Amino acid sequence: MRIDQRKKDELRSVSIITNYIKHAEGSVLIQTGDTKVICTATIDEKVPPFIKGEGKGWITAEYSMLPRATNVRNPREASKGKQGGRTLEIQRLIGRSLRSVVDLKALGERTIWLDCDVIQADGGTRTAAITGAFVALVEACKLLVAEGKISKLPITDFLAATSVGIVDGELILDLAFNEDSSAMVDMNVVMTGSGKYVEIQGTGEEAPFTKEQFLSLLELAEKGIKELIQIQKEVVGEIELYLPEGEKDVEKNG
Amino acid sequence: MRIDQRKKDELRSVSIITNYIKHAEGSVLIQTGDTKVICTATIDEKVPPFIKGEGKGWITAEYSMLPRATNVRNPREASKGKQGGRTLEIQRLIGRSLRSVVDLKALGERTIWLDCDVIQADGGTRTAAITGAFVALVEACKLLVAEGKISKLPITDFLAATSVGIVDGELILDLAFNEDSSAMVDMNVVMTGSGKYVEIQGTGEEAPFTKEQFLSLLELAEKGIKELIQIQKEVVGEIELYLPEGEKDVEKNG
Amino acid sequence: MRIDQRKKDELRSVSIITNYIKHAEGSVLIQTGDTKVICTATIDEKVPPFIKGEGKGWITAEYSMLPRATNVRNPREASKGKQGGRTLEIQRLIGRSLRSVVDLKALGERTIWLDCDVIQADGGTRTAAITGAFVALVEACKLLVAEGKISKLPITDFLAATSVGIVDGELILDLAFNEDSSAMVDMNVVMTGSGKYVEIQGTGEEAPFTKEQFLSLLELAEKGIKELIQIQKEVVGEIELYLPEGEKDVEKNG
Amino acid sequence: MRIDQRKKDELRSVSIITNYIKHAEGSVLIQTGDTKVICTATIDEKVPPFIKGEGKGWITAEYSMLPRATNVRNPREASKGKQGGRTLEIQRLIGRSLRSVVDLKALGERTIWLDCDVIQADGGTRTAAITGAFVALVEACKLLVAEGKISKLPITDFLAATSVGIVDGELILDLAFNEDSSAMVDMNVVMTGSGKYVEIQGTGEEAPFTKEQFLSLLELAEKGIKELIQIQKEVVGEIELYLPEGEKDVEKNG
Amino acid sequence: MRIDQRKKDELRSVSIITNYIKHAEGSVLIQTGDTKVICTATIDEKVPPFIKGEGKGWITAEYSMLPRATNVRNPREASKGKQGGRTLEIQRLIGRSLRSVVDLKALGERTIWLDCDVIQADGGTRTAAITGAFVALVEACKLLVAEGKISKLPITDFLAATSVGIVDGELILDLAFNEDSSAMVDMNVVMTGSGKYVEIQGTGEEAPFTKEQFLSLLELAEKGIKELIQIQKEVVGEIELYLPEGEKDVEKNG
Amino acid sequence: MRIDQRKKDELRSVSIITNYIKHAEGSVLIQTGDTKVICTATIDEKVPPFIKGEGKGWITAEYSMLPRATNVRNPREASKGKQGGRTLEIQRLIGRSLRSVVDLKALGERTIWLDCDVIQADGGTRTAAITGAFVALVEACKLLVAEGKISKLPITDFLAATSVGIVDGELILDLAFNEDSSAMVDMNVVMTGSGKYVEIQGTGEEAPFTKEQFLSLLELAEKGIKELIQIQKEVVGEIELYLPEGEKDVEKNG
Repeated sequence: MRIDQRKKDELRSVSIITNYIKHAEGSVLIQTGDTKVICTATIDEKVPPFIKGEGKGWITAEYSMLPRATNVRNPREASKGKQGGRTLEIQRLIGRSLRSVVDLKALGERTIWLDCDVIQADGGTRTAAITGAFVALVEACKLLVAEGKISKLPITDFLAATSVGIVDGELILDLAFNEDSSAMVDMNVVMTGSGKYVEIQGTGEEAPFTKEQFLSLLELAEKGIKELIQIQKEVVGEIELYLPEGEKDVEKNG
Repeated sequence: MRIDQRKKDELRSVSIITNYIKHAEGSVLIQTGDTKVICTATIDEKVPPFIKGEGKGWITAEYSMLPRATNVRNPREASKGKQGGRTLEIQRLIGRSLRSVVDLKALGERTIWLDCDVIQADGGTRTAAITGAFVALVEACKLLVAEGKISKLPITDFLAATSVGIVDGELILDLAFNEDSSAMVDMNVVMTGSGKYVEIQGTGEEAPFTKEQFLSLLELAEKGIKELIQIQKEVVGEIELYLPEGEKDVEKNG
Repeated sequence: MRIDQRKKDELRSVSIITNYIKHAEGSVLIQTGDTKVICTATIDEKVPPFIKGEGKGWITAEYSMLPRATNVRNPREASKGKQGGRTLEIQRLIGRSLRSVVDLKALGERTIWLDCDVIQADGGTRTAAITGAFVALVEACKLLVAEGKISKLPITDFLAATSVGIVDGELILDLAFNEDSSAMVDMNVVMTGSGKYVEIQGTGEEAPFTKEQFLSLLELAEKGIKELIQIQKEVVGEIELYLPEGEKDVEKNG
Repeated sequence: MRIDQRKKDELRSVSIITNYIKHAEGSVLIQTGDTKVICTATIDEKVPPFIKGEGKGWITAEYSMLPRATNVRNPREASKGKQGGRTLEIQRLIGRSLRSVVDLKALGERTIWLDCDVIQADGGTRTAAITGAFVALVEACKLLVAEGKISKLPITDFLAATSVGIVDGELILDLAFNEDSSAMVDMNVVMTGSGKYVEIQGTGEEAPFTKEQFLSLLELAEKGIKELIQIQKEVVGEIELYLPEGEKDVEKNG
Repeated sequence: MRIDQRKKDELRSVSIITNYIKHAEGSVLIQTGDTKVICTATIDEKVPPFIKGEGKGWITAEYSMLPRATNVRNPREASKGKQGGRTLEIQRLIGRSLRSVVDLKALGERTIWLDCDVIQADGGTRTAAITGAFVALVEACKLLVAEGKISKLPITDFLAATSVGIVDGELILDLAFNEDSSAMVDMNVVMTGSGKYVEIQGTGEEAPFTKEQFLSLLELAEKGIKELIQIQKEVVGEIELYLPEGEKDVEKNG
Repeated sequence: MRIDQRKKDELRSVSIITNYIKHAEGSVLIQTGDTKVICTATIDEKVPPFIKGEGKGWITAEYSMLPRATNVRNPREASKGKQGGRTLEIQRLIGRSLRSVVDLKALGERTIWLDCDVIQADGGTRTAAITGAFVALVEACKLLVAEGKISKLPITDFLAATSVGIVDGELILDLAFNEDSSAMVDMNVVMTGSGKYVEIQGTGEEAPFTKEQFLSLLELAEKGIKELIQIQKEVVGEIELYLPEGEKDVEKNG
């Protein structure tokens, strides 16, 4: 049994509130246990220079924590004058993950910014950010459709993420902060609604791990992500996924 | 009548939720209309170098807005690499205002950090931040008393703030964003529970103003602040104010 | 009697030397007591992006102190890599104040930069900067007229500033550094030649103040500013003020 | 067959030259195909503040590319004034990976800095950096033993890394730049001499991937890393691995 | 004949006003033609870390130009967030030059900061800064003696600097801005009162130069510097130079 | 005799390897003794804004040292967030020197970037960088000719550099690090193949020097540079120098 009485393969309770910030084109407050993240989606009718003129759009993400989201106050990155390596790494991960389920051509020449701001942290902030940002992204895309800017949602699949790890020799799902900080092995998994992997990041800094452990962790993650995607589906309602024209269909060729 | 049907001398509806962030020593979510600010108070058992060894404490503040708190997305100061002039000016104002109602000797050699993060903005974010931060500060000081670190609250008075201005020739209280952006004259007032001024910042960039206008604006502000302090009192409950030993008693000497 | 034998309502001696820097379109050395500020006005035939194409100009200001302008050497902001909050706050104040007496349409699509560099500081540097920058601005505008770029001065009124405060229970005008650092209440006032307020910034960090004190301070400031504007008039000579087309005439509507 | 005639499961030719930089305590030039990285190990008899007094050491890494290591010149991070997200992410990965095979207590209160500078890039620079830095680290630790500062090598296992990916539907080992930039799936694997994983970072930004694909990629990586470790063993010669006292022995408990 | 009617080997008129800034331990306003530089000397009773405990002092310099010192406004380095290469190069030159005529042991464990701020520029700002900073330095050292902190001046020689160059095929002394910007060869020379060189920086970016040209330029410079040192002597009055104990007496050994 | 058995007027052994980095348009590894610098030349078909439209090109340089190029590790400038004064000074020197032997009109509207990265330092890195960068520049220009972008090499002369100095009273050529750090006088000389000076930078921080010493040092430098240019000629082979149309021919007019 875990500190908060959860079973090893049990997610924390999750809630996703949409329309949380009135100005944003899409916005949610996602809570997983005591982790709370505000995710907003902003539509920007420009694209970054490196894809200008290619007839496709872009998805990018920024991540931050309020100074007192954590148990000890973290100095504000704005006042330190730069974003730390952890922040940059996380926001690259969020952007990359979400781009994997968007058909950028179908999005058209525009950028969607996903801002993920952690207002309270208790482990798993990056995976909560991905799970929440996906919903904010869908909401913003619905708006684009409603305004007639695009004809259908450019979303090719659902997407959610969770963490798994080995703590005191036990393989557990959805680590809270105390579990995370004593984990020997720590893994974040991002997966689509059709069960494919988008990102697998496993780290055994405290102790290298075996293939068997790794495969068991993957299974745990898969169980959790399926549940998260179920919750997303309840929140965003019935949506029609975009069918890209086969060019991404790796497994057929594999 | 104003856009949101308010009377000229009417505040927007205000709510102050305490214990909003579980990790912080004091925390509130303050809402004034559609403006929402998270204020946390962090106790740090150190003081800045310039008062080290003087046997007194310090109050300091930081202010920020989430990128999508506003109608148009604002680039994140952390990613721009520096805090803007507006941010620095506001956080200096918040810190100065709150120090005016704290007996720093009674606080002891420690710093209280007040982080004010605007998650949704609709005008009046700096005054909401002051009004909310005061409550977070009181909560943190109560904790210091509860833990036996100080014997009584070092708070010498209540403190709240609001804005007033001249819009289309009308003098109005508590400007929402649309009013603020079309105001000819704009004034922020910070006042104590005993009706004294701590800060008066009046600006007539669009049009200089007369003494009569100015005095009427002050009266409007006073009305609003009294109501805000009434709400603060309901939230923080019965507290005993700290009686400093006369050295701040300017009006007796004046 | 004050340290320097002044009466409570007496300004320090003021001198304004024009054409102080040969390259600038307008320039002055203003001295108020031991405070010395070089103010230059630079005409730039461009406007900032946010008003491009609106057919109007812009006034902006920058402020700095030489490292040894003060009693103790201040590290150079250029070598620290950023401007501090105080600097940014002051230069925003200077720019805002001067814009209030310029008809930006009449100025035409150009920017006037006002650089205020304190070479020796003894209190009141920001108000001296405003008072001096006004003269530099007028000189630059005269040049625009002389060169035929605009047909008349876009200046709508005179403008000067001073400080007032409460020191040892006494209300005094034009605080020198020693007075300023022991003031309980400190106020900067910016006023036009026709006696209207442009900025009022009163701070009671050390002790909140009453409305009576506040009104007395305002009167003191008014007396000082009138004298300063008299000196400005002697320096810039006879000038014809610009009559805007009523849209700024707040008090008529008020 | 691949561009450079390699088989799908074939590494590029690898060479590791030790003692490459005369000043460093350990240094190598590692070449994998046309990728060339200088790795130096610097012994610093201090530890970072967060582990001071804990009786253990630290391993940290920095990574950079010469501006013209790549086909198109990259602006120098020193002249841009900050390290990019990719750089920070890579140097965090290198540090974390190497710490996983060092017994930090056995290292003693000192830091080893690993600087990995890419002088020519052709894909796989981060994995080459890890493989090379391991050798530089061993050389520096040998020096510590030779100087009597520690009694035995604090290295608990060998460590190397490689990349695998899916290109045109083919699963291939050790991607050169052209392969990497057209890969649908891209994975970096860091593994120990005893065949355990330290880091697995798989990314399917261009196309999500299945578990079957993932497992086949892992096997490819394992084959490559075993060959790399064989080369490392030839370079560093006979060394005795450090046997930690069981606390890291995850799989026994698993 | 030159633009300003000077002869080829003629300095511009020079004036050095001491006690220019009341707060500084030493200060001058030096004018050479239209170039005006404020030089202040600040005594700091600390030394930089790299010479701590060596029983000797340090001399360091900073250099800056007001934005409108030049014909076209230069953006402020503080607002750009960093000092440019030209600034850093000049302040390194000033510091190095002045250290060459100070016996750092005799100065004792303290630093003298020399701030050179150009308020109006017309060529030769760096050499004017050196010539003026020398006087400010002497004034500060006199104060140290007067306060009994050191027993005699630690100044081993006089020091001044000027520029020479080749313009339109003519070799000329003390270049004004217009001459400097059309010079094919440009040289700055720093020399002591006893006629030895401290710095020679000759640049032929526009055209390489011959040894004969070079020697003639050196002679011109020598003539100018002798005159500058004569002026310095009139300003600082009779001073006794410090006789170091032979260890710097290169030419005897040479 | 010197530490490394050299005679006073003897260069260290020099080697210049071309085509060292496969991606660059020109590249060398230059070694002078234990100093090793990678110099790459990058052709960029743009020019900086300040010469746009003038029908001529530009040469610019950047310089850096790997952190462990030196005996003690130097913190990376990219991680400190800015380039130091020494770096900026050196890269300005390199750029200026190379521009002196390029006919910028003949180069056409393009920029050549010279990146000089010191991978191992033992004194004389800036002069080795100049000597090596010249060869990389020639290689890049040959490529421009080969590709038909320009009709002949825009190189007007050969160019090399070395250091000379006074150590223990002896005048020596090509100082290694240990010699450099104990030198009383230190001088860098940049000279063309036809024996003219481009830069002379002599510094007597530790001890001012006489004209006789200076002239002897110049002669030593000339001897060394002639040998270096001989080596360059062997490396780049027969090249035809560009004959500019007299406008740079200073000595005729002198």
